[in-house]
Amino acid sequence: MISSLLSRSSIARRAVRGFASTAVQLDASAKLNKPARFAQPISASDIPKGFVVSSTYAGIKAAISPKPADPNTSASTAAASNPNPKPDLALIVSTVPAAAAGTFTRNVFKAAPVVVSNQVLLDGAKKEQGARVQTVLVNSGCANAVTGTQGMQDAESCVELVKKHLAPHPGLAQSSEGRETLLLSTGVIGVPLPMPTIKRCIPHLANGMILRSDPESWRETARAFMTTDTFPKLRAKTFKLGGKEVRMIGIDKGAGMIHPAMTGPAVPSAVSSGQLHATMLGLIATDAAVQPKALQVALNRAVSRSFNCISVDGDMSTNDTIILLANGQSAASSSTAVANEIDESSPDFEPFVSELTAFCQELSKLIVRDGEGAEKFVEITCTNAPSYTVAHGLLSRLVTSMLFKCAIHGQDANWGRILASVGGADPSLTKDVDASKVSVSFVDPTGEFESITVLRDGNPVKVDEDEIGKLLTKEDIKVVIDLQNGKEDCTYWTCDLSREYIEINADYRS
Amino acid sequence: MISSLLSRSSIARRAVRGFASTAVQLDASAKLNKPARFAQPISASDIPKGFVVSSTYAGIKAAISPKPADPNTSASTAAASNPNPKPDLALIVSTVPAAAAGTFTRNVFKAAPVVVSNQVLLDGAKKEQGARVQTVLVNSGCANAVTGTQGMQDAESCVELVKKHLAPHPGLAQSSEGRETLLLSTGVIGVPLPMPTIKRCIPHLANGMILRSDPESWRETARAFMTTDTFPKLRAKTFKLGGKEVRMIGIDKGAGMIHPAMTGPAVPSAVSSGQLHATMLGLIATDAAVQPKALQVALNRAVSRSFNCISVDGDMSTNDTIILLANGQSAASSSTAVANEIDESSPDFEPFVSELTAFCQELSKLIVRDGEGAEKFVEITCTNAPSYTVAHGLLSRLVTSMLFKCAIHGQDANWGRILASVGGADPSLTKDVDASKVSVSFVDPTGEFESITVLRDGNPVKVDEDEIGKLLTKEDIKVVIDLQNGKEDCTYWTCDLSREYIEINADYRS
Repeated sequence: MISSLLSRSSIARRAVRGFASTAVQLDASAKLNKPARFAQPISASDIPKGFVVSSTYAGIKAAISPKPADPNTSASTAAASNPNPKPDLALIVSTVPAAAAGTFTRNVFKAAPVVVSNQVLLDGAKKEQGARVQTVLVNSGCANAVTGTQGMQDAESCVELVKKHLAPHPGLAQSSEGRETLLLSTGVIGVPLPMPTIKRCIPHLANGMILRSDPESWRETARAFMTTDTFPKLRAKTFKLGGKEVRMIGIDKGAGMIHPAMTGPAVPSAVSSGQLHATMLGLIATDAAVQPKALQVALNRAVSRSFNCISVDGDMSTNDTIILLANGQSAASSSTAVANEIDESSPDFEPFVSELTAFCQELSKLIVRDGEGAEKFVEITCTNAPSYTVAHGLLSRLVTSMLFKCAIHGQDANWGRILASVGGADPSLTKDVDASKVSVSFVDPTGEFESITVLRDGNPVKVDEDEIGKLLTKEDIKVVIDLQNGKEDCTYWTCDLSREYIEINADYRS
Repeated sequence: MISSLLSRSSIARRAVRGFASTAVQLDASAKLNKPARFAQPISASDIPKGFVVSSTYAGIKAAISPKPADPNTSASTAAASNPNPKPDLALIVSTVPAAAAGTFTRNVFKAAPVVVSNQVLLDGAKKEQGARVQTVLVNSGCANAVTGTQGMQDAESCVELVKKHLAPHPGLAQSSEGRETLLLSTGVIGVPLPMPTIKRCIPHLANGMILRSDPESWRETARAFMTTDTFPKLRAKTFKLGGKEVRMIGIDKGAGMIHPAMTGPAVPSAVSSGQLHATMLGLIATDAAVQPKALQVALNRAVSRSFNCISVDGDMSTNDTIILLANGQSAASSSTAVANEIDESSPDFEPFVSELTAFCQELSKLIVRDGEGAEKFVEITCTNAPSYTVAHGLLSRLVTSMLFKCAIHGQDANWGRILASVGGADPSLTKDVDASKVSVSFVDPTGEFESITVLRDGNPVKVDEDEIGKLLTKEDIKVVIDLQNGKEDCTYWTCDLSREYIEINADYRS
């Protein structure tokens, strides 16, 4: 089963892209065997208690495509010809209302599901119990972004449909309080959701007999998130908090238009009403008991060191969203969960933030691994900076440099491009950079090759071109930029820029 | 002669890049016949009075390359095998000290020639007569950037060598006052200038018998600026100022690492001491008489609407410099020139700024035309913005979007990518964007096809895919983003992102 799943995953991107004839030579993911290496199975014991999921193939992308590239792949025929098409609609349900937190894109053109989910969390935060959510509806194939008034109506309909059809489940709380729903959408921009398709599928997904908590159901749910991703991104772990075991599971997706800069729920300033993929989504669920306000603080901190530190191609999506649910069901006595919730003053809070941050980093790195056309995985650390803001800002500029990313692709130790890009950042960031103190090193994270310093205190170091050439042939490369002007640091993850990226984004209309 | 010059130009990039075997299929410039279309001859009557130039092949790039890709192209053999190699060292001399202005990169890692030239203008501005300059020394092949203390010493040596060897010329003023020299360097970063080579050549260049003012000498000087450029960028024009004819000539260069953001001469905050090309240089000379302070104001204004509004790949070079010299020699009675110089209150000032701005736009667009791998030329206007800063900032973000540039390359009207990129700009810029008011149109600048609005007041417009597809097959495309939220505007020029760009910047170590 695993192997057939993997083979399906590995052909996902080339199928989506529709250029099968040249796919073999193009597909860096297949060449580097990424699906087999990174689509890891999860253990049933790591799945948090009190969450159930369901997913289905609704045919969303086919329903909104005016001109399918290949008429044989229209919704009905695709389902008929493929006995197990990739799901594109999923429901994640907590058996009790869960403390909820979220971070959302700060793009001006926020998609309707972002606007709706943001508002649910804002409204919840005003209540005594804080933001509580029971369900998350996810779809891929259509981002419901830049869809104007229609898009907002459709998003609100989705919420109502879930509330209406969520059937009593053996473990489901019956209270109508806190049965809020959040939305995650990804896919084509500028086209409305195919509501008839979604209306038809939600009663099925919300059926208590369909909702399950086994690893295979979670894996299918992770697949429902995928668009041009070449493998499902799913991780789970168990860790101790206050001496007791809690579990955490996470799904994310994204491969292009990846350069998130998310904030917590915010009062909307302006909301809007083409075609492109939009893009980074993440859902994390834990059975730890955390008070909603503390949960939001924890997520903000974790995201600032993970999802907000990745870049594939420098563009921020209209849909970037990370949702975190904590339902407190790790303890058997769920009725007392709210009273025992961790808050910011709890001794368990910092350990929880650490565990969450590490987990978010693992999930966010999977997106960079699966970056469109990526053949390299680059970790860049800016150390000894005057502030996190400066370190993050300089790296955020560097990772969008086409010249730097081409050099990495070409295995060229072109550190001049690193300096030119960093040095060209906003003056508010570079004013604290003393060019005569900067050092730059290339590091092999596996330790096979020794680190090589190419610039020390602003002066070029004569290096052995062959040595550095060998280091750069590695798939994973680390770059350290030492500003020697402070004590803060930031680490960013990015990939190279390849011809395949151009193929994907120029030759195929997403 | 012209045709042989053009054929040399057209093979310049592929020769520099060193992948001749696949050059034909790669070279967008050759395919689109750019050298023949854009390397226009100039008329002798448009050359400003009182300027003379000289150029030579010094073999700078060969002298600093530790491992020439092809041993047959080392300095001496290249000169031997090619009877007319591209010059790489040139001198531009005004017969009298000229009013001088400059704009320089705000990159933290400013190259030594930038630091030296900036200081000359700062020092000059403190004098009663303002900044006056007589000579500009230009070299290509080595940027003298990130070269530490050695680089600064070398740059200062260049200045001294020019002063020492500049021989009395028939029309040359004999005063030692105002005989200042500015430096322009472009080429490889992180490697010191080959000073023995330069020392050997300067006496030759500075010889009064070699310095000439004919079109062919100017054209050879323009070629001395070139690195990966596929054609020399030279323009000249005559216009009337206060009823009298004045002339203006301009050279610029650049093809990659192009996203300038220059400012006028500034007190240095920090100065620094790899391999890459660095990159945009421009020299403009006029025989109009303009007071130095007014000249700097005029240049700042012109650059903000031209060179600071172009992008090939989003990276700002360490060497970006535009120099403007005005020697007042249009009038026969040069002795009274200083007294008659235009200042900011003169009625001739605004007309001069307009002429200069149009000229700078023409020159800067040549760089985008010659963008590495570029097959498209895109003009993007942001209209009805609350301020120039907002319009410029939003476009400056959009033109670095790989997704947008790939869509243009793929002739895909993917306006969703335009919105996602603009919407993801810095919040200080997007806070004044009302997403529900934004409109986006595609325009055919030739007028062959009608304009097509794809987004109106924040709502997608149903468009004829075939019509827009036809419009996007054109080489030149215009995009208009109407914010409907103010009265200011900005226009940016950029190109597409192609596989050839990756070839150039990943496979070849610049």
